[in-house]
Amino acid sequence: MANVSSTARPFAIARAEGGVTAPEGFRSSALHCGIKAKPDALDLLVLAGDGAVPTAGLFTTNLVQAAPVLVSKSHLAKSHGLAHAVVVNSGCANACTGPQGFDDARQMTREVADSLGCSSEQVLVASTGVIGVNLVMSKVVAGIHSAAVSLARGRGSDAARAIMTTDPFPKEHAVVVQTDRGSFVVGGTAKGSGMIEPNMATMLGFLTTDAQVPTAMLQRALTESARDTFNAITVDGECSTNDTLIAMASGASGVGIDEESYPALFDAFLAVSRELAIGIVRGGEGATKLMTVTVHDARSRDEASQVARTIANSPLVKTAVHGADPNWGRILAAAGRSGVRFDPARARVRVGGILLFEHGLPHDDAAPLAAEHLKGADVRIDVSLGSGGSSATIWGCDLSAEYVRINGEYRT
Amino acid sequence: MANVSSTARPFAIARAEGGVTAPEGFRSSALHCGIKAKPDALDLLVLAGDGAVPTAGLFTTNLVQAAPVLVSKSHLAKSHGLAHAVVVNSGCANACTGPQGFDDARQMTREVADSLGCSSEQVLVASTGVIGVNLVMSKVVAGIHSAAVSLARGRGSDAARAIMTTDPFPKEHAVVVQTDRGSFVVGGTAKGSGMIEPNMATMLGFLTTDAQVPTAMLQRALTESARDTFNAITVDGECSTNDTLIAMASGASGVGIDEESYPALFDAFLAVSRELAIGIVRGGEGATKLMTVTVHDARSRDEASQVARTIANSPLVKTAVHGADPNWGRILAAAGRSGVRFDPARARVRVGGILLFEHGLPHDDAAPLAAEHLKGADVRIDVSLGSGGSSATIWGCDLSAEYVRINGEYRT
Repeated sequence: MANVSSTARPFAIARAEGGVTAPEGFRSSALHCGIKAKPDALDLLVLAGDGAVPTAGLFTTNLVQAAPVLVSKSHLAKSHGLAHAVVVNSGCANACTGPQGFDDARQMTREVADSLGCSSEQVLVASTGVIGVNLVMSKVVAGIHSAAVSLARGRGSDAARAIMTTDPFPKEHAVVVQTDRGSFVVGGTAKGSGMIEPNMATMLGFLTTDAQVPTAMLQRALTESARDTFNAITVDGECSTNDTLIAMASGASGVGIDEESYPALFDAFLAVSRELAIGIVRGGEGATKLMTVTVHDARSRDEASQVARTIANSPLVKTAVHGADPNWGRILAAAGRSGVRFDPARARVRVGGILLFEHGLPHDDAAPLAAEHLKGADVRIDVSLGSGGSSATIWGCDLSAEYVRINGEYRT
Repeated sequence: MANVSSTARPFAIARAEGGVTAPEGFRSSALHCGIKAKPDALDLLVLAGDGAVPTAGLFTTNLVQAAPVLVSKSHLAKSHGLAHAVVVNSGCANACTGPQGFDDARQMTREVADSLGCSSEQVLVASTGVIGVNLVMSKVVAGIHSAAVSLARGRGSDAARAIMTTDPFPKEHAVVVQTDRGSFVVGGTAKGSGMIEPNMATMLGFLTTDAQVPTAMLQRALTESARDTFNAITVDGECSTNDTLIAMASGASGVGIDEESYPALFDAFLAVSRELAIGIVRGGEGATKLMTVTVHDARSRDEASQVARTIANSPLVKTAVHGADPNWGRILAAAGRSGVRFDPARARVRVGGILLFEHGLPHDDAAPLAAEHLKGADVRIDVSLGSGGSSATIWGCDLSAEYVRINGEYRT
């Protein structure tokens, strides 16, 4: 990885069981408090450390920010990056809900704090679901009280389900990192299905580790690993009002992270975040295919990313991929309108590794092979701009009639 | 209109019969030459003045430009804005077709020029259809020869059909302008269905007038009127390789246009272009509703336009409109990610004139009325940013499962 320097100490990363409660020092409780109509659908989660622990956050870049986002940002600042717990509800975004929404988000943190015996500034809150609807606080408060007394280890899979909205499957992942100082674990869960773009649109993500990490270094690992994972995915180019990504470090493993061992933490964050981020795209609304778009030979990483993002968000590329049509013309046309300058005569387009366009000319004889590749669930698109040495990858999905159905009927 | 000053002379505009051959001094011929598979589908058009006349053009901003676009730009420069004819084919875009594509586009102009007895630089060419496929020139050349000997007046409706690809209906419009110097006519036709965004994505448009207009003034009228018409529409945010908008002025009416009477020409261009542009959106791929998005009280027209465009291109707004869901939250969230700064607490959202969001709070009691409005074929979305005095309108359409079907099956 980019951050491994010659002074880095050796480490090895392997897949571990479980998700957000896989690391030592975290407990969770998930239940149905009544926000979702379906009787057995989990809609409330409390995730807690054994005490206040170093905590970092990343939040939506949308100008319109939901109450829980504003409350969590404020609490993170006031608590100097030390949080005891996060409370999350699904089914209602508590966004555009006015002063009542802020009162409700603050009350959610206060109820958790009272139960755990900490200050409400040491509790963060995240919500996802319909915009513009107020929470029914009697249900939420009763739910928090029940959850707070039943916190337990090993309930990560319930946590993963409790944060879902239109997600077709829960997303969790964990890795164990072996270092010469001992081993630590990084785990996580995430939700997100529609309204997914670069800046973590309708996405909630929670990462945990039992490494000992100062808040500033935790924030750095979260920010740097999100760049190529949660911020490199798109379902529909939308960015929501509620995006929240939180990382907590319990320190329970006794393994301390410093500059020398930072690459081990960063790589573990990258591994867990990539798995969760790709899971979000794979479970994107109406998605039937994961589309990995890599742009090569660009003048800068940002330009590569901009071109890849334009391709991954192009309705014509997404529908062509859905229909297994190796339509390199649409791919090239999307690159051409991305705002990045390049010489089309030097560009190359590959689908599934198969060269379809080069030197300004199509290789249509190869189209049937590329069409075969597109029938699978994992689609690779590679575009070379021929103008530099940088590259970037964006993960997207196809556009199906099911996306239209889901989003045309979401509230009605 | 913006260009009417106190020195402007009075004029009146009324609807006229016909389209691109409604003005005096233009003849056309459209036929099936065999590019389209369907036996009776018109796929070739020659539109000609009685001689070389002042001609203006606007072309795609995509970096990837088709051969006919590059040839037309070059011919317009070499002929100093004097063209005798335009030859157009549908069914094949002649884009990404290498040197052969350039030879073919040039040959199309040469064949027309030979038939009309002018230089090939006085002929422009436009193509629309599948990218990356070469024209079958034997068919095209035979078609041009037939068309050139059968040029006639009053065949505008055939011209409108000959340029169509997935368009569900032909688009033509004409107006007659009464001035104190006499009357002149402006007519036009356009095609476009998918790949439609600001900069005239897969759009072809041809405007004609029998006013006497110098080339520079014709270019100005075309550019200024396109800003709020052809460049203010979006079907899917895509921008094609072949967009072409051409205006020709025969001067046959004997009515000369100068600075004083420019507003009459501009308004007539605006009227015809708006009708054609809205027709393109209404006939957008899979579109069932025309969505008129106006952003008010912005700091500048550009910012208003940027927010309106983001809303009109938002898949979540487009699917909500398709499902007649008055989901102001998605509208506000799209505005919030547009890149334009504003205070959400001062923003207002109206659907069909019905206020749904103000002072940071929803007016959900009004939602059923707005839902009724959304069931119609003409949808109005108005967003006030509360930060200035500028406004802009963008026309878009809903996103339906039919769009996915059309574009998932276009080539296969």
